[in-house]
Amino acid sequence: MNVWEQYTPELVTDLYELTMAASYFQEGMIGEATFSLFIREYPPDRACFVLAGMDHLIQMISEMRFSEASVAYLASLGKFSSEFLDYLRGFNFTGSIRAMREGRIFFPHEPVLEVTAPIIEAQIIETLALNVIQLETILASKAARCVHAARGRGLVDFSLRRTQGVDAGVKAARASYLVGFLGTSNLLAGKIFGIPVFGTMAHSYVTSFEHEMDAFLAFARAFPENTVLLLDTYDTISGAEKAVQLAQMMAAQGRSLRGVRLDSGDMVHLSRRVRQIFREGGIPEVKIMVSGNLDEFRIQEMVDAGAEVDLFAVGTRMGVSADAPFCDIAYKMVEYAGRPVLKLSSGKKTWVGRKQVFRCFDNKGMMKEDLLALASESYPEAEPLLEVAMEKGRLVRPPDNLQSIRERFEGEWSRLPLSCRELKPSSHFPVRISHLLQSLDDRIAEERELEEVKGKKVSSSG
Amino acid sequence: MNVWEQYTPELVTDLYELTMAASYFQEGMIGEATFSLFIREYPPDRACFVLAGMDHLIQMISEMRFSEASVAYLASLGKFSSEFLDYLRGFNFTGSIRAMREGRIFFPHEPVLEVTAPIIEAQIIETLALNVIQLETILASKAARCVHAARGRGLVDFSLRRTQGVDAGVKAARASYLVGFLGTSNLLAGKIFGIPVFGTMAHSYVTSFEHEMDAFLAFARAFPENTVLLLDTYDTISGAEKAVQLAQMMAAQGRSLRGVRLDSGDMVHLSRRVRQIFREGGIPEVKIMVSGNLDEFRIQEMVDAGAEVDLFAVGTRMGVSADAPFCDIAYKMVEYAGRPVLKLSSGKKTWVGRKQVFRCFDNKGMMKEDLLALASESYPEAEPLLEVAMEKGRLVRPPDNLQSIRERFEGEWSRLPLSCRELKPSSHFPVRISHLLQSLDDRIAEERELEEVKGKKVSSSG
Repeated sequence: MNVWEQYTPELVTDLYELTMAASYFQEGMIGEATFSLFIREYPPDRACFVLAGMDHLIQMISEMRFSEASVAYLASLGKFSSEFLDYLRGFNFTGSIRAMREGRIFFPHEPVLEVTAPIIEAQIIETLALNVIQLETILASKAARCVHAARGRGLVDFSLRRTQGVDAGVKAARASYLVGFLGTSNLLAGKIFGIPVFGTMAHSYVTSFEHEMDAFLAFARAFPENTVLLLDTYDTISGAEKAVQLAQMMAAQGRSLRGVRLDSGDMVHLSRRVRQIFREGGIPEVKIMVSGNLDEFRIQEMVDAGAEVDLFAVGTRMGVSADAPFCDIAYKMVEYAGRPVLKLSSGKKTWVGRKQVFRCFDNKGMMKEDLLALASESYPEAEPLLEVAMEKGRLVRPPDNLQSIRERFEGEWSRLPLSCRELKPSSHFPVRISHLLQSLDDRIAEERELEEVKGKKVSSSG
Repeated sequence: MNVWEQYTPELVTDLYELTMAASYFQEGMIGEATFSLFIREYPPDRACFVLAGMDHLIQMISEMRFSEASVAYLASLGKFSSEFLDYLRGFNFTGSIRAMREGRIFFPHEPVLEVTAPIIEAQIIETLALNVIQLETILASKAARCVHAARGRGLVDFSLRRTQGVDAGVKAARASYLVGFLGTSNLLAGKIFGIPVFGTMAHSYVTSFEHEMDAFLAFARAFPENTVLLLDTYDTISGAEKAVQLAQMMAAQGRSLRGVRLDSGDMVHLSRRVRQIFREGGIPEVKIMVSGNLDEFRIQEMVDAGAEVDLFAVGTRMGVSADAPFCDIAYKMVEYAGRPVLKLSSGKKTWVGRKQVFRCFDNKGMMKEDLLALASESYPEAEPLLEVAMEKGRLVRPPDNLQSIRERFEGEWSRLPLSCRELKPSSHFPVRISHLLQSLDDRIAEERELEEVKGKKVSSSG
């Protein structure tokens, strides 16, 4: 049983999306709704987010249909009328989508996605949209911190074995590649996205031979052009000495040792000792990769302490975004049938209405401030971040290729104030609310408060 | 593009599994290897693990083949010989597996899985085994804590929107159901596993109507037998008063309001106020569900503080195991070609050899101590936890159904010492190492130390 083959987008859904849809259907509510997808707050130590996952989401929305098997399952629940089930059989998304592009940097309360569609269609995609955007975005945001901490040294994703499932493993490889990793150990991600793959040997390989040197020799026979040795199965220093011996034997055949990996112990100390042994052995150029419990903080420490590392293999802590394994992401209705709407629930702010994010730059081209405004406003000097991605159910552009997303991210990151790139950010980026948005929001909140909480009639002038 | 359909088990693999395999192939290494899968340490606040994911893993191993598309991708990497690629085309798992059953409680260093197979086969499944077992096990272990904290009140999984991907969402629904949740909001998990599904309405539903009461009336029309109202869109207390009005109207038609949900604010205070309003309105029996940022600690606080809650809807923090989003899980070779093997890497202990976990009970039937021993040992008074699941590539039993796993877990949990069930455990369960295992481990470690680190020759007497 391959459980993953059974994951169909139309059922990546909470039951309530469909009970609400069934009620809208019964009531004949076919008005257009707009939903905003945004993150409410920074997780610890974060001062920006890197958007990822959007192209995949938009593709899935445009292709979403309810298979007969899915409809049969829903029918079996005994909750839905046959008319509504027939509606689902004919479902396809006919709405419009404005979205930020992948690789963009964004901040809390900025919508990265606004969906405008008949209310049932806009509602049904909620769970899917949240799941897909949150995962890749927290992973890209985490991986960007690792890239920043490595200060030019290479990084590779080794997280698949301990990500939260296979979907997360594939997305971790993609998200980390988008922000500058060199590649991944993950073959599935390599195949699906064409990401370069890395990897050589495990401790089990070394222990399967009677002697460590036998293992090194066998590996060099199998991969003479790409011999990378794991040194710490028994003792890193002894391993390094054997690596020098092997490199000398390889040199006699006109080959060279490509690299070594250290996976345990005091990495700063050991990497320097290993480099010293390699210098003395005449192979100073052999690449040193380190792995094992790395994250952006550990990488920064090692770089600061002068570790001799060419390549960081980053696994679990990046792959699960260990210090921020989720974020407060929300998909909220902000307009229905031309009427701005909002909820008042305490402590959970949603900005009303269709919106746009306008980005302002200083005269050096650095990001200065964002303006969260109504979509109908215009600020010619600023860059609007939400772009039309789908119009009346039709995609208006093909998905970005990974290379162009990498370049977009690099451009964004280089224009982000330094204070927001630090691992312990010293300030947050200013996001200003436009006067028109603020006053619309105030008016609707007051109206709702009077009508629904205090029970007074208000003449609606939406 | 449905990316999930492209997830094939044979490529849920790090590249190094295949580079090692290619070298074994080239060297003609066809000896049998045994690998142990175990967790090294407790994450914070944990004193036990609940095993989940095993049946799915074993099924996938037994069915694993390399598709032509997967082989073509591997060929495109330019790393593998055509002989090795042909070997992969004919791959199927011919080994044996001993494993604990799902729902079992286990402790660090206890193997939950031992795979004995030709070394290439045993090696190739490493990444898949780690990913599948870790995810469902950390989720089941987290969810069990929520069930414990709820002291008999019902729980439902609402996590799909913020799990780390769709695979994690499906596994969160299954894992939480295995340890006693009533069901899930997740339709995909409902369809795949037959788990009961729950869910009613979101804030967007309420705001899409001009007035909250219109929304409540419409929902009661659509789902007269299962009317559950979300109360906090504008104000929980006003919402509760409207719920009483609706319940009175429904009563006039011989129907009754099923329940309400609170999603924000001071839940202890609000749930008590709502119950009071319901008592005064003559509907004391209406179920109160709460949701929003719940985990086992929050649930315990609410129960202790006398919150009036019938049902907890637990989302993100359970679904990502937020306080312990990964664990130190490992899959290590412990024997090759009849020779016990181990690595010496500092701080990462692996017990050598094929093993068995023997569980001892006191005279009241409570778990007293586990004994980690060699598989060849025998302790007739204790229960051996590793059972044969596959023999020479053939499954020896069908997968457990979910109900029997639920019952197994319930039995295990009730026999676990109270100190290990607490949210802040006061002690750890004793796991003793058998004398034979300890002395074999000492002997091999010493031999490796002498041979590989100090460079002396030792006469092997494996």
